[in-house]
Amino acid sequence: MAEAVTEARSSQIVVMKFGGTSVAGPDEIKRAARRIVAAREAGKSVVAVLSARGKTTDELVEMAREISERPDPREMDMLLSTGERISCALCAMAINDLGHRAISLTGSQAGIVTDSSHTKARIIDVKADRIKAALGEGSVVLVAGFQGVSTDSRDVTTLGRGGSDTTAVALAAALGAEVCEVYTDVAGVFSADPRIVSDARKLPVVSFEEMLEMAASGAKVLQLRAVEYARNHGIPIHCRSSADDGVGTLVVSEDETMERPLVTAVTHSTDEARVTLTGVPDEPGVAGRIFTALAGANVNVDVIIQNEPVSHSEGADLSFTVERDDLAVAKDTIEALDTGVGIEQNDKIGKVSIVGAGMRSHPGVAAKVFSTLGDHKINIEMISTSPIKISCVIAADSVPVAVEALHKAFGLGADAVREEEPTGEHRPRVTN
Amino acid sequence: MAEAVTEARSSQIVVMKFGGTSVAGPDEIKRAARRIVAAREAGKSVVAVLSARGKTTDELVEMAREISERPDPREMDMLLSTGERISCALCAMAINDLGHRAISLTGSQAGIVTDSSHTKARIIDVKADRIKAALGEGSVVLVAGFQGVSTDSRDVTTLGRGGSDTTAVALAAALGAEVCEVYTDVAGVFSADPRIVSDARKLPVVSFEEMLEMAASGAKVLQLRAVEYARNHGIPIHCRSSADDGVGTLVVSEDETMERPLVTAVTHSTDEARVTLTGVPDEPGVAGRIFTALAGANVNVDVIIQNEPVSHSEGADLSFTVERDDLAVAKDTIEALDTGVGIEQNDKIGKVSIVGAGMRSHPGVAAKVFSTLGDHKINIEMISTSPIKISCVIAADSVPVAVEALHKAFGLGADAVREEEPTGEHRPRVTN
Repeated sequence: MAEAVTEARSSQIVVMKFGGTSVAGPDEIKRAARRIVAAREAGKSVVAVLSARGKTTDELVEMAREISERPDPREMDMLLSTGERISCALCAMAINDLGHRAISLTGSQAGIVTDSSHTKARIIDVKADRIKAALGEGSVVLVAGFQGVSTDSRDVTTLGRGGSDTTAVALAAALGAEVCEVYTDVAGVFSADPRIVSDARKLPVVSFEEMLEMAASGAKVLQLRAVEYARNHGIPIHCRSSADDGVGTLVVSEDETMERPLVTAVTHSTDEARVTLTGVPDEPGVAGRIFTALAGANVNVDVIIQNEPVSHSEGADLSFTVERDDLAVAKDTIEALDTGVGIEQNDKIGKVSIVGAGMRSHPGVAAKVFSTLGDHKINIEMISTSPIKISCVIAADSVPVAVEALHKAFGLGADAVREEEPTGEHRPRVTN
Repeated sequence: MAEAVTEARSSQIVVMKFGGTSVAGPDEIKRAARRIVAAREAGKSVVAVLSARGKTTDELVEMAREISERPDPREMDMLLSTGERISCALCAMAINDLGHRAISLTGSQAGIVTDSSHTKARIIDVKADRIKAALGEGSVVLVAGFQGVSTDSRDVTTLGRGGSDTTAVALAAALGAEVCEVYTDVAGVFSADPRIVSDARKLPVVSFEEMLEMAASGAKVLQLRAVEYARNHGIPIHCRSSADDGVGTLVVSEDETMERPLVTAVTHSTDEARVTLTGVPDEPGVAGRIFTALAGANVNVDVIIQNEPVSHSEGADLSFTVERDDLAVAKDTIEALDTGVGIEQNDKIGKVSIVGAGMRSHPGVAAKVFSTLGDHKINIEMISTSPIKISCVIAADSVPVAVEALHKAFGLGADAVREEEPTGEHRPRVTN
């Protein structure tokens, strides 16, 4: 009985999120408005989360740089939060012109409550009363993505790049929405980057766990934190193209994906750099101090390997990868610790990964990855694995060849026979 | 004693308002920041109200027009309010870089409470607690002008064009500020438009009543509503150039202006149109219905004259002037009343006015105006007077000659000997 009530409630509300390219100009905004109205006319209560238009955020960042080399984070948030508000107000006008009532809300008005970490705030609560009241009156509600209001100082905060995905998922969870639809300029989640692999295939269904590994290893279509939030709250995400009515990709919990493909996708990144520390003293606590300091400086460390020292006196070698943009900060941070270790760097590295929930129960996948790369004379410099992912750090200029080779080796192409073609259950159950 | 307390409090806070051209680019914003910091370093508590940068508001309006022919007013306000927020965030960054703490506040955060008349809201309360707390901590407070939050629906509202002047004066009143400084791209209030009259003189002091008449009759330097608000709350306004340290113009209550010049300034407008209604039935209530309908359509009627009918059966002629932009609405409104009156229009008219507090006690000023215009073969079509103002409606293309002639006839030029040169009392008592 409780389940039936939940079902009735959740079948009514849909959250639709439109990215920057999907609201870039007046035509795109009108197109988004028509899509929202179609959902409304199909009987849904619609909350739409919008990003800033096209290059707006970049332009605002540039304005700040013209004023200050180190803009105050609180003021940066006040500045950047205007972009999404502009999108929402314009889209509300377009929906009103289509004969439906729409209101735009700022993150604060929508009840998105965050901590006070300006420019990278985390959502800690969603007070959706005002949204619920507007939906109850039959209005479409447009919410400015990427932003909230801090709980202690009532200041405007932003969630960091891509934060509008997280806004949308958080609202879907708070409202008990049936699905969070994410509209972008790509048709869904692919088995590899179609710009590199010509026969890359759009995936009908991906599990949260796979999507998390893919987002963490280079797939750009969804923000990592949004996927995490969706998994924790059991909110299905439906990635779709804002330009057409294609079926898109559904991101759901693993028990809904039916089949466990061995390998689902090949992802890659070329935005990485490697730091090698030489002569790290073989005594407890040194590595701990180094990684604690890096975390304090907000540097995300990805793959780490340590070579055992040949003798106690020589010390060990320790290598790790970071985002290339963080390389300078990482070096400065380690030098400031004054541990006496040598620091070498290589900013010409990349990473190729394979992700698949079926790997858990199939040994031998790693061996196939290594032999495939070996057949193409690609040297593997570092390896990192999870139960459903294998990542190899390789030379940056080898990345395209590695992606193509792995995609082919694991039979992921559009011509390959796949078991997990969408069943009725996985077809989009919402608008269009 | 109460007076001494007021004096002590009011000597501490200054409100500085910067117009759009004064924050147009990064250099202008940094200049405004330096001026604010100079006041802060002189020991003042500073609240600065900023307009949107240069053409920002026009660009936002254009974005709305691309979406909708009749943008929803609520959404228009959400859209337009972003411009001032951008200015404030950027200026706060610049002040922080100068070593002072500054925070920007939206109109809502600053406690500017308005009614719900979107795009032309009126301030009904200022809840300045948050500003006072920030000033108490030694921060400079930057407030987004032109906007507030509606008391009933907590929506973003805007105050109409030029509304930032009103924001500044309202804050000055609520905070008990000693003065409201208004920085623009002109040096102050002039005896006539310097683009028409080469020897127009900057006025050191103007009374609220004179400034009201001047703003109502074409002077653009201050918004009418802001002057009204300042008069009602006794807040001196100091008009200054943001580009230099000139002494500017002080707008104060009449008992502080010491002298009552016969004529203070010549103002003009060429944005007007005349409507003539013919055959208006000579029965009670017809004119009342017409002007009630015009007021309901938000048309400001300026000068009105009625010719007595020769006989009861002919009906009267009734002429009035409106802003040229309102002409079409005015005609539509009257036609919709279906009173059977004839409607003629003339959109090539202008208005020239002389304003001066001394007129009250000096008869004969009107005669001099009429003879001066007559000497220049300028036909006066309509006349409107107040105790301190005489306005003449004339052909639009006669306006420049009329302004020059009247300015000369009343001896307002820079070379003229004037009695009311600034005394020590009237010199700016505030920053720098």
